[in-house]
Amino acid sequence: MNPYLLAETSPSSWRVYLFRHLGKCKSDYTGHPPEVSSKGLRRWVQAVRRSMLKPVTRERYQKISAMLAKRQPDLSVLAENVHKPHNLSAILRSCDAVGIPTVHAVNPTGGVPTFNETSASADKWVELNVHASLSDAKEVLGSVQLLAAHFSPQAKDYRDVDYLKPTCIVLGNEKHGVSAAAAELADAHIIIPMLGMVQSLNVSVAAAVILFEAQRQRREAGFYDAPRLSEAERRRLAFGYLHPRQAAQLEARGQQFPELDDDGDIAAVLS
Amino acid sequence: MNPYLLAETSPSSWRVYLFRHLGKCKSDYTGHPPEVSSKGLRRWVQAVRRSMLKPVTRERYQKISAMLAKRQPDLSVLAENVHKPHNLSAILRSCDAVGIPTVHAVNPTGGVPTFNETSASADKWVELNVHASLSDAKEVLGSVQLLAAHFSPQAKDYRDVDYLKPTCIVLGNEKHGVSAAAAELADAHIIIPMLGMVQSLNVSVAAAVILFEAQRQRREAGFYDAPRLSEAERRRLAFGYLHPRQAAQLEARGQQFPELDDDGDIAAVLS
Repeated sequence: MNPYLLAETSPSSWRVYLFRHLGKCKSDYTGHPPEVSSKGLRRWVQAVRRSMLKPVTRERYQKISAMLAKRQPDLSVLAENVHKPHNLSAILRSCDAVGIPTVHAVNPTGGVPTFNETSASADKWVELNVHASLSDAKEVLGSVQLLAAHFSPQAKDYRDVDYLKPTCIVLGNEKHGVSAAAAELADAHIIIPMLGMVQSLNVSVAAAVILFEAQRQRREAGFYDAPRLSEAERRRLAFGYLHPRQAAQLEARGQQFPELDDDGDIAAVLS
Repeated sequence: MNPYLLAETSPSSWRVYLFRHLGKCKSDYTGHPPEVSSKGLRRWVQAVRRSMLKPVTRERYQKISAMLAKRQPDLSVLAENVHKPHNLSAILRSCDAVGIPTVHAVNPTGGVPTFNETSASADKWVELNVHASLSDAKEVLGSVQLLAAHFSPQAKDYRDVDYLKPTCIVLGNEKHGVSAAAAELADAHIIIPMLGMVQSLNVSVAAAVILFEAQRQRREAGFYDAPRLSEAERRRLAFGYLHPRQAAQLEARGQQFPELDDDGDIAAVLS
């Protein structure tokens, strides 16, 4: 079946087709089904094919392993109703750079913005966890300190807080900032000193300024010198990045992932 | 004359109209004449009217004076062929926040990108100085240290350089980074540690991360505690911000700006 023809069919039928044809429906993998336009779909099918055909090389495996060895499972971002795609994309990109494995988003007014080129494919490496409400997000986050980028009388300079503690940085909407509920929920408010006429930074810029302060503190404390994710977790994630189709099949069957050899290839034969 | 009708006339005739009607053609003031579309022009005329009708208040004068007292005349940014409007706008916004009075741009492949809402009006407070070539920019910048955000074997961590020296940070194009010529011209190359899979940050994000490190160093060294622009310079700039029409008239006549009283009003009677 030709991608052009595919575009003429209904979303459910091309999903079934892709699932059969490619083994794993990419739309389920990324959480962002493409719009059904022939051009978009064609490019998307090509991208899926390319990504599935990309050979596992030792170099790629080592790069992924090195990245996983620096991931900070106790550092995250909660984007509250950030609605511009290029802002969310730039936030994911900065998160990748400081080793944040998961970004949380709460978008009560609509869907999560799709990605654009700004992410430089960071959306492949940083998981986006979308929650229906702030309280749902809080439940998943657990007992980490919530630092809201929010101007208030008790707000502290962002450089004067301790990012070595398990931390989630809460960023608000482009126009209105963090909601009153999120400001209330936060353990502290942080601000970036603005020494000019403009009151605030662009949200993705503010995110980066804060995150690189966290990176600075954690680097000095040696948090990137030894892996902070367990070996089992790193193995599971590496398998998923390198063999997304097989990972999906195994997960669907409730089976464990097999070992990888030094080249990142699957060592054991799949049952 | 109605802005709708204005849009039907030629650019030169509506310029003459606006110059007569508003006393000063805003397009000359910002350097960005609007496109001749009825909607754009209408909104622009409204914005010009609003800005000209805005009363000078003591509060506004004090805010501008406080901003000028923190400006760092020996800190700047050179944006080399940054071509996305929202990136240049976000850079200007970050520059305002760290007290940079002037951003330099070299855009050999076309015009300077126009501003959008990302700047949050920072383009009003940060001067954009456009140069035809890198060497022209260098001549204007003089003997400051040029730090290029550029990956090379000799590149240093951006936190390991001294931003107390007169400094200009060189940022390159979104896709290709700084040019070979700019990398060659630079006194040092700086990089932001990327600990994930993505190789680089968005240019406006990288700018902010570097600029807030400069802000940190300069704050610790007391560079924001006392004015670094001369009193004459601050008075000249404040007059221009508060009374743009009169400033333009006086400049055209080659006359000095009169004193301002405590409310920012013109103390002396114009001759």
